[in-house]
Amino acid sequence: MRPICFFSDFGAGDASAGVCRAVIARLAPEVRVIDITHGLPQRDVLAGAVVLRGVVPYLPDGAVCLGVVDPGVGGERRAVAVHCGHDVYFVGPDNGLLPMAADLAGGIVTAVELTNEEMWLTPVSRTFHGRDIFAPVAARLAQGRELSSVGAGIDSATLVRLSLPEPRWLAEGVHATVTLIDSFGNVLLNLAGEALAAASPGEPAELRCPSGLFAAQVASTYGDVPLGGLAVLIDSSDVVALAVNGASAAQLLGVAPGDALELRWHACA
Amino acid sequence: MRPICFFSDFGAGDASAGVCRAVIARLAPEVRVIDITHGLPQRDVLAGAVVLRGVVPYLPDGAVCLGVVDPGVGGERRAVAVHCGHDVYFVGPDNGLLPMAADLAGGIVTAVELTNEEMWLTPVSRTFHGRDIFAPVAARLAQGRELSSVGAGIDSATLVRLSLPEPRWLAEGVHATVTLIDSFGNVLLNLAGEALAAASPGEPAELRCPSGLFAAQVASTYGDVPLGGLAVLIDSSDVVALAVNGASAAQLLGVAPGDALELRWHACA
Amino acid sequence: MRPICFFSDFGAGDASAGVCRAVIARLAPEVRVIDITHGLPQRDVLAGAVVLRGVVPYLPDGAVCLGVVDPGVGGERRAVAVHCGHDVYFVGPDNGLLPMAADLAGGIVTAVELTNEEMWLTPVSRTFHGRDIFAPVAARLAQGRELSSVGAGIDSATLVRLSLPEPRWLAEGVHATVTLIDSFGNVLLNLAGEALAAASPGEPAELRCPSGLFAAQVASTYGDVPLGGLAVLIDSSDVVALAVNGASAAQLLGVAPGDALELRWHACA
Repeated sequence: MRPICFFSDFGAGDASAGVCRAVIARLAPEVRVIDITHGLPQRDVLAGAVVLRGVVPYLPDGAVCLGVVDPGVGGERRAVAVHCGHDVYFVGPDNGLLPMAADLAGGIVTAVELTNEEMWLTPVSRTFHGRDIFAPVAARLAQGRELSSVGAGIDSATLVRLSLPEPRWLAEGVHATVTLIDSFGNVLLNLAGEALAAASPGEPAELRCPSGLFAAQVASTYGDVPLGGLAVLIDSSDVVALAVNGASAAQLLGVAPGDALELRWHACA
Repeated sequence: MRPICFFSDFGAGDASAGVCRAVIARLAPEVRVIDITHGLPQRDVLAGAVVLRGVVPYLPDGAVCLGVVDPGVGGERRAVAVHCGHDVYFVGPDNGLLPMAADLAGGIVTAVELTNEEMWLTPVSRTFHGRDIFAPVAARLAQGRELSSVGAGIDSATLVRLSLPEPRWLAEGVHATVTLIDSFGNVLLNLAGEALAAASPGEPAELRCPSGLFAAQVASTYGDVPLGGLAVLIDSSDVVALAVNGASAAQLLGVAPGDALELRWHACA
Repeated sequence: MRPICFFSDFGAGDASAGVCRAVIARLAPEVRVIDITHGLPQRDVLAGAVVLRGVVPYLPDGAVCLGVVDPGVGGERRAVAVHCGHDVYFVGPDNGLLPMAADLAGGIVTAVELTNEEMWLTPVSRTFHGRDIFAPVAARLAQGRELSSVGAGIDSATLVRLSLPEPRWLAEGVHATVTLIDSFGNVLLNLAGEALAAASPGEPAELRCPSGLFAAQVASTYGDVPLGGLAVLIDSSDVVALAVNGASAAQLLGVAPGDALELRWHACA
């Protein structure tokens, strides 16, 4: 049996994630469900895609990833499943949520549109395909069914793809975009960790964002700056992030995903 | 072994749900616990009963449902367990939380008051029967013990029952009550989905609630109305709901569970 | 296989807890993870230590407790694991989070610093040892590896220890400190339950806190006082707590962990 790794934006405030777990247990009692998070930013497909991608290196062998951030549920977007080079499956809406992660999981080898209604719960609601289509299909794949049993093959090049904005390098720094805020208020940017390779821990840095100008310091971890100080560091997902020692950087800076800011450190000057 | 489906209003902010999971694992290590939700509205027994009922059609075979919304813990309300026609058990307080769901699970066949203290943790606290009574009893039932081993038979007609207010049909619409707000801010009403059967997607509708008058549209799913638009649709739990495409209807309308509103659509006019 | 009981301050808003669960499933697919809570107060090591200790009496046999509240991650604090008299393991940072709970689990028999890098994920981040060090080590201990396989023995007397402030008995009452607020807003104090043994349910009590003077009543459970009334009772974790029937005492009183207050009841007068 393959484990199901379950990601969604369902939140903890209702039974949406739980009813999907119940559906999986009903169809495939022997399959294990590992909740990755149900706190993906609501209806934000790009942010969800970034989180999914970040978890790929840590997935258990043979994982079936059930990913649901699906603001277009019941509309024209397709429901899909893909099998990747590293023997990982992804099941979810064709809205850009899955391909970034699939690329990192060895690339898409086979893709299907979920067309086999025999695999679904009936009647299928128009507003909750997580429960009625995606969870049942994930359960079947976890039991070892072939991808071809859940739908008709499609060209993976036709899948909807999203991408992060590219950072823009300036004479004296970089113009970057906030991609995610984590539970601690750390602010993740669209900058691979290597962008910080030229800077040394302890070097001063400077951050300009809509709410003002902030002095910061290049650091390796939170405690490298004084309590309340602003650090620029390489996050555990290997991207450049802004963090405050002992508090929330997002709150200090007043930023949210999608916001632009300008960062400069010695190496850029 | 039967799976335990665990519902509570314990929230995610402390270890209450976790310590119940630990108790079950201690008594019955081989039993699987499926968390349905711990985000039931705090101390709101009727809202909890509605959520439980909504999950019944999706329960795994032989489920033992452990339900805890228990503002009267340690007082005079009884602790009970029931066995239903579809071979589902419910364990929890006798305050109205369980019977609505039990009815949908084939109806109560046998009911007991939890009187066998040998099944409990000792000493029993006065404020946390979830941990000390309900979780241990659920663990024993999941292991296959008979209902008679956990307490003395009672007449199921003596169980406390709650019911939703009935909608009131008006000459030109319906006077309804908000029963639940889901994680996305969708507003569920005390109206079975069939109430909307006479209306066609695309028809205009009108909503009057304490905060004002709102134009809406009958729809099948969120994306049938423009971003920010208000939809009246049949929710995935087969009740009439109000939803905003891309945002929270509860926030737009300023409503909460228990609030009354007036809805009219073409078919009512 | 031993079960892993997982405690952290990661919250539900990102994939931090989930990626640790994935890491455990990848390394030790047969090991069960029981989430105790991920809602420990963020970066508050003492509060986390109190919650961990409260769960000890309910742990399943042979538990490996993975505890992560780690504001000093990547700095000089050690990473440690201990084995306790009641055959319970604790894995986490050496910042005071674990010893209170370890004492209650039979006391520390053996302690190691996590020095065996072969047990870690590589590369090890500087900001997420939960994923890279603690979860992998917990997985190995759960599989039955010896403590000596994950690190070098250390003197348990060198572990960082925290302690709650002692209550101060006054001529007419007690000067106490708030240790925790639970999900329902109940206010837990640094007073063992036995402190209330001399008072009888129904006796009047009086509470003085920064926001004012409040009349309360000694009670056994929430419903012993009228709706909205303030109760002084012995909590399910056997400490004295303040609770409001049907609402949040923390909100009524305007208190937070660390706040001081003065409580008097008949027996003190």
